[in-house]
Amino acid sequence: MAISSSLIREFRTICGARHVLHHRDELLVYESDAYPLARSLPQLVIFPTSTEVAAQLIQRLYREKIPIVPRGSGTSLAGGCLCPDDAVCISTVRMNRILEIDLDQECAAVEAGVISQSISSVVAGHGYHYAPDPSSQTTCTIGGNIANNAGGPHTLKYGVTSNHILGLTVVLPDGEILRVGNKAPFATGVDLTRIFVGSEGTLGLVTEAIVKLTRLPSTVRTVLAVFDRLDDATQTVTDIIAAGIIPAALEMMDQAVIRLVEQAYHYGLPTDAEAVLIIELDGLEAGIDRLLQQVLEHCRARCARSLDLASDPQKRMLLWKARKSAFGALGRSAPTVLVEDGVVPRSQLPHILRFIRGISRKYDLPIANNFHAGDGNIHPNFLFDGSDPQQVARVQQAGDEILAECVRLGGSITGEHGVGIEKIRHLPLMFNDADLAAQQRLRDLFDPHHLANPNKIFSSSMNAAVTTTADNRADRSPSEQAPIPESVPT
Amino acid sequence: MAISSSLIREFRTICGARHVLHHRDELLVYESDAYPLARSLPQLVIFPTSTEVAAQLIQRLYREKIPIVPRGSGTSLAGGCLCPDDAVCISTVRMNRILEIDLDQECAAVEAGVISQSISSVVAGHGYHYAPDPSSQTTCTIGGNIANNAGGPHTLKYGVTSNHILGLTVVLPDGEILRVGNKAPFATGVDLTRIFVGSEGTLGLVTEAIVKLTRLPSTVRTVLAVFDRLDDATQTVTDIIAAGIIPAALEMMDQAVIRLVEQAYHYGLPTDAEAVLIIELDGLEAGIDRLLQQVLEHCRARCARSLDLASDPQKRMLLWKARKSAFGALGRSAPTVLVEDGVVPRSQLPHILRFIRGISRKYDLPIANNFHAGDGNIHPNFLFDGSDPQQVARVQQAGDEILAECVRLGGSITGEHGVGIEKIRHLPLMFNDADLAAQQRLRDLFDPHHLANPNKIFSSSMNAAVTTTADNRADRSPSEQAPIPESVPT
Repeated sequence: MAISSSLIREFRTICGARHVLHHRDELLVYESDAYPLARSLPQLVIFPTSTEVAAQLIQRLYREKIPIVPRGSGTSLAGGCLCPDDAVCISTVRMNRILEIDLDQECAAVEAGVISQSISSVVAGHGYHYAPDPSSQTTCTIGGNIANNAGGPHTLKYGVTSNHILGLTVVLPDGEILRVGNKAPFATGVDLTRIFVGSEGTLGLVTEAIVKLTRLPSTVRTVLAVFDRLDDATQTVTDIIAAGIIPAALEMMDQAVIRLVEQAYHYGLPTDAEAVLIIELDGLEAGIDRLLQQVLEHCRARCARSLDLASDPQKRMLLWKARKSAFGALGRSAPTVLVEDGVVPRSQLPHILRFIRGISRKYDLPIANNFHAGDGNIHPNFLFDGSDPQQVARVQQAGDEILAECVRLGGSITGEHGVGIEKIRHLPLMFNDADLAAQQRLRDLFDPHHLANPNKIFSSSMNAAVTTTADNRADRSPSEQAPIPESVPT
Repeated sequence: MAISSSLIREFRTICGARHVLHHRDELLVYESDAYPLARSLPQLVIFPTSTEVAAQLIQRLYREKIPIVPRGSGTSLAGGCLCPDDAVCISTVRMNRILEIDLDQECAAVEAGVISQSISSVVAGHGYHYAPDPSSQTTCTIGGNIANNAGGPHTLKYGVTSNHILGLTVVLPDGEILRVGNKAPFATGVDLTRIFVGSEGTLGLVTEAIVKLTRLPSTVRTVLAVFDRLDDATQTVTDIIAAGIIPAALEMMDQAVIRLVEQAYHYGLPTDAEAVLIIELDGLEAGIDRLLQQVLEHCRARCARSLDLASDPQKRMLLWKARKSAFGALGRSAPTVLVEDGVVPRSQLPHILRFIRGISRKYDLPIANNFHAGDGNIHPNFLFDGSDPQQVARVQQAGDEILAECVRLGGSITGEHGVGIEKIRHLPLMFNDADLAAQQRLRDLFDPHHLANPNKIFSSSMNAAVTTTADNRADRSPSEQAPIPESVPT
């Protein structure tokens, strides 16, 4: 239902007039996230500064049965931040305090709007970091990471977000505040914390988290391995893992990505190579170089053209920047980029990449691949023009075929980007009716009126409220494709 | 309600007459588990052989609203397997098949009644193991491990059961079969798998699991470090962790445990030492000995009396056998052993052990400590006579004080043994009413009639149906204290 002007006045009193946006031009920034195929304007965007204020707002909205959509930095690649036009967007960006650093218990208490990377920055001097490192870590919030159970290159060794969250404060859809978990690394009773991680805001708004801090490794070795043939690169990944070596990260970029990244960042990547691997080992100084030699041997055995050690920290940082900024580089090459996200058993990497090449030809669509090879977590990037309905239809069919193949191989329809609005239609590939009903029942328990992030993971009649881009108007310019740090009222 | 003879006949037709126990003398084996302070006879014990058969039985019981209690090997230390006298015990021991080993995806599909250790035994030849290793691993079932989110010595490096479960098949309290998760190591949608792990059978009966397989480390180094002073041993634990070293395991036994273990197993432990540490490092051959030297240096800096390398596999196995069989050795020394289970920040280990010593004096109770020091997961073992109500009362008060101190220090009332019937009264130390209500709501969602493992984690009126030992008769003989492998009808 439409929000009343008296309620808007009330929210302005609570949050300050500047922190309640409702003019159309202000709302435009919040009409989409990094998923390019849909957009929709919220009724209102509000910026609470604490759990208590958020609870107060949500309580009031609950009374009117107005849906809420949590939003951090808006970097969702699956439309997780999209607001149906009857919803209010609750932005977490002003809840950005690091509340406590507890080195003794190796954890930190942070608010949901804290930028993921900044946790690591704050504790680096003490020899710690927050291990999950999605490529968007300099922009995205810890709240968004929790909502989507985010991964990242170092997931291979350190695990996804779920493994690093000890406790949460959640404002439930009716405005009640719930605190689950604590600093102890063992759950007691039914593990409510893990229900909220990955639930994409459909069970309530996460406002605070206790996150695990991980020791920085004392030694790191990072190799850029260049391959003339894509197949050799994927086989190398399989070989390294099969040998029982678990690198800290094991990433792949194919030729299309290499070329675009090189154009944008000039790292010196060989644009004639079919693929490169970034292989990172970490741990204690003792023995790491012998392990490195084993990794290099595996690369050589698969005809690596060159093996380049990013030995100084500067060079390593630049290499990671090139990898993690690939999404931005891709955005320069086409009006629209859609990053697909799927998982296959690692042994199937050679197969799935050949399959993707076939799909690219079949649908006449450029697809660039940069992904977490060690985890079998693929990211085919579709480069196209989102204002052309026929291209959009081809992209969706091509994506459908790739995800179906992932599931057929024993994998999954999403590794780390979540279901959002994008993958709802793919859920039946993985779940039968009973499974989906169980998830739905759990959602109904916390949110019987479907007010919390409606139309994400769980389909609903509110589908109609979000319009797909190709339906109604030309897409945005390429520069707008990448997630834009929003101007945040402070 | 009492079970009808026609229902018993029905179950005999489904499972075979020998697999439905209802004579009092047959039921006696199932009246308790490894928690010594309560017992109660079930109405019936049934042994289904598959998910489908279990679902059929549970459907029938649901129609009559008869509660069910899942039971594996009955090794719960918190009364998790206790049957109120109106309940039917569903034993999983005949669901003991390993359904699939998938080395490519590094996982195995197993039935709930599979003995934990046997998963590792079956895949050892391929260079893998199932990493969680509770001390009872040669006896306990994977279903029980899942129900309690079991830990073990190697939890320090490899994480608890929750980190190793990819998917589950659950028979819900109404008999519906639910499959959650799959082989891919990323959850999709709301993470139902993790709700069931650690829920102690209160949400349904886990019948099958997909478990992660972990590479066996190529190299292991195991040290027995002997300390004249307990404080030096606990400080060494703190020092090693503070130096950023994460051993595969870091275990402590105090003098009382050393003496009892030595009497029982003759490993050659020094009975005049106040404490020993078992420190295990694992990983690749490269560099492990330099890491070992660092660990030895930390021990020497805290005046370790001797440092003994268990270099050959035989010696290592014997040392671990001594550690993991300590519970049995304790059982020889007193009519009753109660293993307390709490967690403290590792830096508080010296404090909590001094505190426990004080409690031992205050209540005039011998307390022996063997525990997962690296995790801060303490296990004070009370040695007493459970047939003496006054001693029982003192044990419970002493336990209460220790757990309250754990929570005060920022720890937890249980690390790995679960809540069971034992810790229900301690839950308010950690959770406020809203938290407890949220857990209760989740339980009600899956089990609105409270039929699944009643009176575990969640208190209910059925409390009264379980009698505490001291109330009504003398305790069992000491040899019965340790979990006894039950005679299983096959």
